[in-house]
Amino acid sequence: MNHRYSERICSTQKSFIREILKVTADPEIISFAGGLPNPNLIDDEGIQRAAAALLKEDGKTALQYSTTEGHPPLREWIAERYRTRYGLSVSADQILITNGSQQCLDLIGKVYLDKGDSVIVEDPGYLGAIQSFSMFQAEFLPVPLNEEGPDLERLTTVLETSSAKFMYGIPNSQNPSGITYSENRRKDLAAILCDHDMPFVEDDAYGELQFDGVTRKPVSAYMGGEGILTGSFSKIFSPGMRMGWVCAPEEVMEKILIAKQASDLHSNYLSQRILSKYLEENDIDAHIAVINEEYRKRAGWMISQMEKCFPDDVQFTRPTGGMFIWLTLPEGVSSSELFDAALKRKVAILPGTPFYADGGGDSTARINFSNADKEDIMAGIEIVAEVLEEIRSTPQ
Amino acid sequence: MNHRYSERICSTQKSFIREILKVTADPEIISFAGGLPNPNLIDDEGIQRAAAALLKEDGKTALQYSTTEGHPPLREWIAERYRTRYGLSVSADQILITNGSQQCLDLIGKVYLDKGDSVIVEDPGYLGAIQSFSMFQAEFLPVPLNEEGPDLERLTTVLETSSAKFMYGIPNSQNPSGITYSENRRKDLAAILCDHDMPFVEDDAYGELQFDGVTRKPVSAYMGGEGILTGSFSKIFSPGMRMGWVCAPEEVMEKILIAKQASDLHSNYLSQRILSKYLEENDIDAHIAVINEEYRKRAGWMISQMEKCFPDDVQFTRPTGGMFIWLTLPEGVSSSELFDAALKRKVAILPGTPFYADGGGDSTARINFSNADKEDIMAGIEIVAEVLEEIRSTPQ
Repeated sequence: MNHRYSERICSTQKSFIREILKVTADPEIISFAGGLPNPNLIDDEGIQRAAAALLKEDGKTALQYSTTEGHPPLREWIAERYRTRYGLSVSADQILITNGSQQCLDLIGKVYLDKGDSVIVEDPGYLGAIQSFSMFQAEFLPVPLNEEGPDLERLTTVLETSSAKFMYGIPNSQNPSGITYSENRRKDLAAILCDHDMPFVEDDAYGELQFDGVTRKPVSAYMGGEGILTGSFSKIFSPGMRMGWVCAPEEVMEKILIAKQASDLHSNYLSQRILSKYLEENDIDAHIAVINEEYRKRAGWMISQMEKCFPDDVQFTRPTGGMFIWLTLPEGVSSSELFDAALKRKVAILPGTPFYADGGGDSTARINFSNADKEDIMAGIEIVAEVLEEIRSTPQ
Repeated sequence: MNHRYSERICSTQKSFIREILKVTADPEIISFAGGLPNPNLIDDEGIQRAAAALLKEDGKTALQYSTTEGHPPLREWIAERYRTRYGLSVSADQILITNGSQQCLDLIGKVYLDKGDSVIVEDPGYLGAIQSFSMFQAEFLPVPLNEEGPDLERLTTVLETSSAKFMYGIPNSQNPSGITYSENRRKDLAAILCDHDMPFVEDDAYGELQFDGVTRKPVSAYMGGEGILTGSFSKIFSPGMRMGWVCAPEEVMEKILIAKQASDLHSNYLSQRILSKYLEENDIDAHIAVINEEYRKRAGWMISQMEKCFPDDVQFTRPTGGMFIWLTLPEGVSSSELFDAALKRKVAILPGTPFYADGGGDSTARINFSNADKEDIMAGIEIVAEVLEEIRSTPQ
């Protein structure tokens, strides 16, 4: 049979990360390559209690078809959190529950992107977003990130010389770089975007994972409620239950709703109900505080070991949240070479190239700190340092 | 903010059905408009036991991120069922778990459809598929259904005069018509499709809901393993858990996998594990037999009440499975008029027009029999008959 595939699918690659994760799944490997929450910080017992109570009380309803928008009390919980945590004026009508926050990107692609449309992305940017928007044959306009956030001079040039549908970014503990936008950069970015009438799709997957204890307002807060926010319970509840959401102005939400209906009718209703029950019965803030304390320690161990073992010309970010540190290797050392050599010593890192929509980044790598224990962090970083030294001392 | 939406989203309507369901959600209304499985036939207690056991045994793993393809034992269970039930040569590698079978349509749209590509559909056809493929700006080539399946003469003309990417159909107890393709029609259809090198996307949402006790081979069985099948646990397990799958030749599966990664990484893993546990611990065939016996009775009550109450010039299908009966009203009576008038009497039916991709069908309606009890079926059909009589006797 001659399958005549779409242009879109022929031009989209398999996820490089998910392919690498297959290689690194060997339990003998110390893996810093993935992006898994620490399994010890998943409250399986609390979820078990919530599931049992919910199925007993209201099983038949929780197992039936439901509305496209999602479970109203869960949507209200999310809206309330936006109001109290960030002072945003958000109602439950502006929230739609998705199959993980990755699905938000698919829905937003459907709502905004025709073939050849442009999207402004961070450089490096989140691979899952690049892949998702690629499905809609988007072109990418990368704007470099520096320590405080996107390079606004470059952004202004891009806005003045190109026509994009929206900008996509992760202001809190960005994946892959670990960078958090400063408050001033958020304000300035919001002003520039509003001036150019440019929607901002703000992926806040790591907003709750801020272990410096600072709550930063979303960029949307400085845009008069016009931003589109995506969020996730994957990092604070359970990734396997795929519970995410999108928050958008009502006009945009009408379109997102149509896209969601066509995509899969509605998100897993049983999981929405278990999550909602869990939030009723448990102190999620206390749980988040425990996660943040554990991740703060892990990031600290990793940074101090990098400081101890790495030569001075290796640069790395010092994240205050999230799950990743970003390495920049000395000139002439390629991260794919480092990946290959470290894997032989049973340590996995993630080369940074796939995070660059337009190529480049060959000397960069993403290192995950959330999923390993202290012993593996210390041993693994030491091995990466040794391997790096070997590569540099080998005549090319 | 000036949102510049995509062409696709501007040309796709909200689901008419889901809008109607909001109107008919009033518990005082006898609703034949939806497509809900009967809640009394959802085994909430069995699911509760499976969830409790699974979360106790392996909670942390079941709540973590997982593979895009889905839980291997669940995929193997599905493949094994294809082998034993239909004699198809299917391996677990050909199965990917989706967020309900609606998501299969989205993934298939991504894999095959560029703007303006054509899809051959049944006329009337499944509204959810029309909506899903519309997201990819497909054109529709409708082929009328008659009692035994698609009109092959018309199909041949379409194949010879147009260029389609695939044909989409529901051979078992079609939604909306309730029609089941005959065995001969399946064979002839398969031969014609193979002759024209035309893939068949075979939606088998109702394959297990066959209350005449006959197991019919999929059209794919006559196409040498080249078909693409979609399936669902919604009708035999739980719709709210959104567990569906797509089965495709390995070459096609590689593309579907990329589309799934970009769409939402993977389906709800906890639900996959609960389902898999349930299938281990329970006799699903016995449960399916109970559902079929109940639906057989309901369809029987409804058909006999229609025979008793409806005038001779109202036609209706006599389904041997699934959840729907298809009405064809006498010339000059519009089903939207019937809908409005019946709703005033607190009975809801579903006008047939949205099931026609190219318009038409104004004298048709879909009647669901799975979700109502005997009393409501008898009373509701009597009211529809009375309303119909009133409409006909009112001078236009």
